[in-house]
Amino acid sequence: MNGADALIETLADNGVEACFANPGTSEMQFVVALDREPRVRPVLCLFEGVATGAADGYGRMAGKPAATLLHLGPGYANGGANLHNARRAGTPVVNVIGDHATYHRQYDAPLTSDVAGWAKPNSNWVKSADSADAVGPLAAEAVAASYGPPGGCASLILPADSAWSPTTVKGPRIAPPTRAMPAAAAIEAAARAVRAAAKPVVLLGNPAVTEQGLKAAGRLSAAGVRVLNDTFIARQPRGAGRFSPDRMMYFGEQAMMDLAGADLMVLVGTSVPVAFFAYPDKPSVLVPDGCRTLDLADKAQDAAGALAALADALGAPEAIPVVDLDLPDAPTGELNPYAIGASIARHMPEGAIISDDAVTAGLPIFMQTKAARPHDWLALTGGAIGQGVPLALGAAVACPDRKVLSLNGDGAAMYTVQGLWSLARENLDVTVVVFANHAYRILNIELARTGAGNAGPAARTLLDLGDPRIDWVQVAGGLGLPAERCVSAESFDQAMARAMSTPGPRFIEAAIR
Amino acid sequence: MNGADALIETLADNGVEACFANPGTSEMQFVVALDREPRVRPVLCLFEGVATGAADGYGRMAGKPAATLLHLGPGYANGGANLHNARRAGTPVVNVIGDHATYHRQYDAPLTSDVAGWAKPNSNWVKSADSADAVGPLAAEAVAASYGPPGGCASLILPADSAWSPTTVKGPRIAPPTRAMPAAAAIEAAARAVRAAAKPVVLLGNPAVTEQGLKAAGRLSAAGVRVLNDTFIARQPRGAGRFSPDRMMYFGEQAMMDLAGADLMVLVGTSVPVAFFAYPDKPSVLVPDGCRTLDLADKAQDAAGALAALADALGAPEAIPVVDLDLPDAPTGELNPYAIGASIARHMPEGAIISDDAVTAGLPIFMQTKAARPHDWLALTGGAIGQGVPLALGAAVACPDRKVLSLNGDGAAMYTVQGLWSLARENLDVTVVVFANHAYRILNIELARTGAGNAGPAARTLLDLGDPRIDWVQVAGGLGLPAERCVSAESFDQAMARAMSTPGPRFIEAAIR
Repeated sequence: MNGADALIETLADNGVEACFANPGTSEMQFVVALDREPRVRPVLCLFEGVATGAADGYGRMAGKPAATLLHLGPGYANGGANLHNARRAGTPVVNVIGDHATYHRQYDAPLTSDVAGWAKPNSNWVKSADSADAVGPLAAEAVAASYGPPGGCASLILPADSAWSPTTVKGPRIAPPTRAMPAAAAIEAAARAVRAAAKPVVLLGNPAVTEQGLKAAGRLSAAGVRVLNDTFIARQPRGAGRFSPDRMMYFGEQAMMDLAGADLMVLVGTSVPVAFFAYPDKPSVLVPDGCRTLDLADKAQDAAGALAALADALGAPEAIPVVDLDLPDAPTGELNPYAIGASIARHMPEGAIISDDAVTAGLPIFMQTKAARPHDWLALTGGAIGQGVPLALGAAVACPDRKVLSLNGDGAAMYTVQGLWSLARENLDVTVVVFANHAYRILNIELARTGAGNAGPAARTLLDLGDPRIDWVQVAGGLGLPAERCVSAESFDQAMARAMSTPGPRFIEAAIR
Repeated sequence: MNGADALIETLADNGVEACFANPGTSEMQFVVALDREPRVRPVLCLFEGVATGAADGYGRMAGKPAATLLHLGPGYANGGANLHNARRAGTPVVNVIGDHATYHRQYDAPLTSDVAGWAKPNSNWVKSADSADAVGPLAAEAVAASYGPPGGCASLILPADSAWSPTTVKGPRIAPPTRAMPAAAAIEAAARAVRAAAKPVVLLGNPAVTEQGLKAAGRLSAAGVRVLNDTFIARQPRGAGRFSPDRMMYFGEQAMMDLAGADLMVLVGTSVPVAFFAYPDKPSVLVPDGCRTLDLADKAQDAAGALAALADALGAPEAIPVVDLDLPDAPTGELNPYAIGASIARHMPEGAIISDDAVTAGLPIFMQTKAARPHDWLALTGGAIGQGVPLALGAAVACPDRKVLSLNGDGAAMYTVQGLWSLARENLDVTVVVFANHAYRILNIELARTGAGNAGPAARTLLDLGDPRIDWVQVAGGLGLPAERCVSAESFDQAMARAMSTPGPRFIEAAIR
């Protein structure tokens, strides 16, 4: 056994079953050791941002970490944006970052860099295994650190000589942590505050938006408390038969109007809501004047348990309001996000997983699918576009029996377009839709909001993707996916019907304005 | 004037004429301000790694910085790998990283991260302009810092409110620095050491490999001193009429054989040579036993001047050995890197610029073009693949009257494939060649060298790109480039003849084994 074996066996002992990899020379021992450990499935990604986004998607669905395999500092950097999203999602991820042999670092070879420095902003744990004997124990530490709570990215730096040197030391099996309940006094205080409030609201963050959390939140709703969730939730169970909280509005002034009159905001697994961006003369903190905020459970605590305890303390009913199945009619005419949302709602099967990187097209589809068959919605938690395809890749590896639908703005899809190839290679049951409006549409909206003035020719150059127009069917076809273009609501509806009833990877370019 | 105007005007006053951009909401003021400053050309890149690699290519050719425009921490991370290469090349680059408004940072909104922490490993200067009045002066500081010497990446963080707030303060015009000569005593000491040595060699790094530096190095060669340069040079003038140093071998044991018997190594603009990677039982430091090393000029000093002074001190002749023009015959039969190199040598015009990210195909082409028409060769300085297309983009913007040839391994090209679109959009005179062997070929070689053993099915999965085979003609065509596939030496030779004699962007897939 060498250090690489100790690493992979320790990961496998701790339930790590997938490794999204883009290896280089310094990772060759790890690569070969994978052949000796059948419990870990290697998935090749042609760019590290695909690997890290896939690990995020895997972790959100499996509730346990996948590993990534990254090549020194630049390999980590390439994966950094999607690890930012994973950090914001609280997803457990174990990054294995290959590095130079320990004795070689001092020479400042061309690929030498401050790997730990690069990993630190995104990681809740960064250590380097500087001997073969250290690898296994640190791998177990990394798995434990990835769980948190709250979950996040653990980054284990693996020098080449630690991987190739012999060892007899494996890491221990660690027990995934349990989340602690808030103190009974905190529950009681919240119940008293809710009873005393004229217009109380409860705001749910990631750890609260689970099947159990939503059931408890539905009881609060039944008791007359308004329930909202954060705008971007890592994994949201939705659709028929489930309680559907309201969603915090994206733009601050809309959120403030929506919350007008609230005099109490109970925070469950989240923090005080703030605007995504600041704008001149617009609010940053999205809490109305005179509204008190109160923490019921923080991001590390048992949010679902806290909600249930609060419901009990309030004597809330057991029966909760749920969404009834209500599928839209077949859309006709112009292809736009509302029509697309209708088709998705009509055809997606129970248990579908939606990876949403659709930017301006996302909200209409979110609204249209509210009463669709039960499904999970994975949002862009950190705002770093380029997540949609990688996340779908990882979700499909985690859940091979579920249909995955990846929704992408064209600007966003281009960031990690390499992920299409991995979907084809692994023959995963993923349908990718790209909304080809040939613009950074959101930036045209944001331009007005920031008060920057009108776009002249130079500015328009930076917001427009239409010259040349990307032929997405060619791009996706070249990367190995069956691909088609839809230009009307009717043709999209037919394409979606086929895609949802046929297993395997496929690609649809939705030509929208 | 607002802070964004102050930034762009200050950059333009200091000779910054290109901005490779991937903007977001926090950069809208900068984007609109570009319309008010015609001296700066905005170039949209659909991924930040394209923008940073383009700035590197621009800086290598123009000898002055371009700006990048990046969106918060994740945008910087996406550009980090190519900034690593730029750092290793010593290229001046000014990164403008948009950030949240200063007062909004405290709220930990979804896109908030430690921007400075992320930028630090690659940057020789990182500052945040936390008021509108600070923007202009810091922009001038950033330009100065990018020049060094040695040159490198300066990263200016631009909070949104600093961009949108009014100011009357522009930054000063700064004078690009001059490089200092080594002390006369150091020149004399080197001359004495060379005279006393039985087998002296001179090793040139980036700042020594200029037209002037090569002329002086040629004089040393004429005086009997062997001259080599580092394996990967940022910008190497080559071809007919120029002195051609030997190149340090890539693999350490080959380099040690090549240097056997040398008893003095004079370092000029570089440091002690080391292996790219460490391997079990192979040398890290590539200096033979008994060979003394001596610094003539460090990376910040006037390397060309130091070489000329050393040549004078040694009484070296003025006439130097140069390469005679010698073009290969038209290749026939199987398409392989030697045949490709022959065609490139035959057809590339004087003044061509080659961006080399060709990995295993690169050395044969480098050898075949030694006696071609004079050209510049831009190498992968930092080992982070995905540089070839972006570097060509930037070089073509810097040198609109020169033909640019971008050579890419298929694995490498996929990293920053989005750059193809920018070549088409800007209608640049760039020919992109992708060597489609459908494998990470270099890793098959490295696998053996690291002693990791044979690749089983799992390991082979991580080294092979052939399932599915990427159809590069479709991918490049979908991104807007005229594209063709060549499967024989004859067809490639014809395609290269057309490409080199016709202006504008085009793409060739070279189907090699």
